[in-house]
Amino acid sequence: MPLQEAMQTQRAIRRLKPDPVDDEVLLRCIELALKAPTGSNAQNWAWIVVRDPEVKRKLARFYRQAWSIYGSLGRRRVGSDAKMLRVIDAVQWQVDHFEEVPVLVVPCLRGLAPRFFSVFPTGGSSHYGSIYPAIQNFLLACRAEGLGAALTTLPLWSVFQARRALGLPLNVQPCAVIPVGWPKGRYGPTTRKPVEKVVHYDRWGNRKPKA
Amino acid sequence: MPLQEAMQTQRAIRRLKPDPVDDEVLLRCIELALKAPTGSNAQNWAWIVVRDPEVKRKLARFYRQAWSIYGSLGRRRVGSDAKMLRVIDAVQWQVDHFEEVPVLVVPCLRGLAPRFFSVFPTGGSSHYGSIYPAIQNFLLACRAEGLGAALTTLPLWSVFQARRALGLPLNVQPCAVIPVGWPKGRYGPTTRKPVEKVVHYDRWGNRKPKA
Repeated sequence: MPLQEAMQTQRAIRRLKPDPVDDEVLLRCIELALKAPTGSNAQNWAWIVVRDPEVKRKLARFYRQAWSIYGSLGRRRVGSDAKMLRVIDAVQWQVDHFEEVPVLVVPCLRGLAPRFFSVFPTGGSSHYGSIYPAIQNFLLACRAEGLGAALTTLPLWSVFQARRALGLPLNVQPCAVIPVGWPKGRYGPTTRKPVEKVVHYDRWGNRKPKA
Repeated sequence: MPLQEAMQTQRAIRRLKPDPVDDEVLLRCIELALKAPTGSNAQNWAWIVVRDPEVKRKLARFYRQAWSIYGSLGRRRVGSDAKMLRVIDAVQWQVDHFEEVPVLVVPCLRGLAPRFFSVFPTGGSSHYGSIYPAIQNFLLACRAEGLGAALTTLPLWSVFQARRALGLPLNVQPCAVIPVGWPKGRYGPTTRKPVEKVVHYDRWGNRKPKA
């Protein structure tokens, strides 16, 4: 698939079929994820591939705990915005069917906890900058394979509990949970703010380049 | 360019020609960057495109300040590892020629500072998870256009100073500085740890999927 098409049609796919996802296709996506850059080329990542019903059940429980608060706040905030209500309904579906998702992929960072980095103002950026480029590669690779995927962090609201469910050592930080499966719906173009609205030239507020 | 080829041949390109990079090609890359997901679809980003010599000079100075410490630590740490020494030499070239780079792109997040989020363990992840997927899209799009680019955070070691140089309001956080230009060298395949070394099944330490 052309790069541009993959990017233009990538979107969170939350409604997934329960059909299994083979390791072959999944590892192909993770392999492409690993091609992304990491700070100082440390490649300090770990990827947990969860199919075990017991572990999925635990992550589903954590997700529901967080969503019970975050979701109702969200519904109140979006009011009657039909587009955002559709997103919330899709998340609700995902929360309700989390155990039926064939695979949960949990990208992790190995090494010092971000609390250490928060001493330096750019520490947090370098830290997460070593996993999210890989996560985006993974999501794009899923898109190209026709797999549905979506980025979530709410199941990790308690890192302590998540770490226990996944048996992670203390120096391994789970960063996101990505449910992966064959989509019930379809991928399609997304709408975004026009680029002119987000670009500034040289300094904040200059909306046109110098002649 | 096929997605897979772009990912497999993406690498940090630090030695850049001083030839100008037109807005047309650059905005095309930023437009694709904006297709990446953001938390709650907030699209809370801003992209500063820096060509002004005065602003570049300031960012170059900050970069040199940080590199004078980080670079010598790095040289000591890598010892005689020829591959990592080549990386350090490339960064040194970049540091020495920073003002000559035609464009510096500074992706920013608008909204609450990460210090607020650090109250919640997953806050940092959601926060930076709203900019680094876009940054990776941008780097891949540059790759497909034949533009050289590399991810840096050291020029932002003092967010206070960086914010002043770019005229950013307090609620806008610069996350990275990406020097962009036409490459002197060439893109090519990268080497990474094999996928089997980074994947665990269901729980940490299980290196094989359940039969």
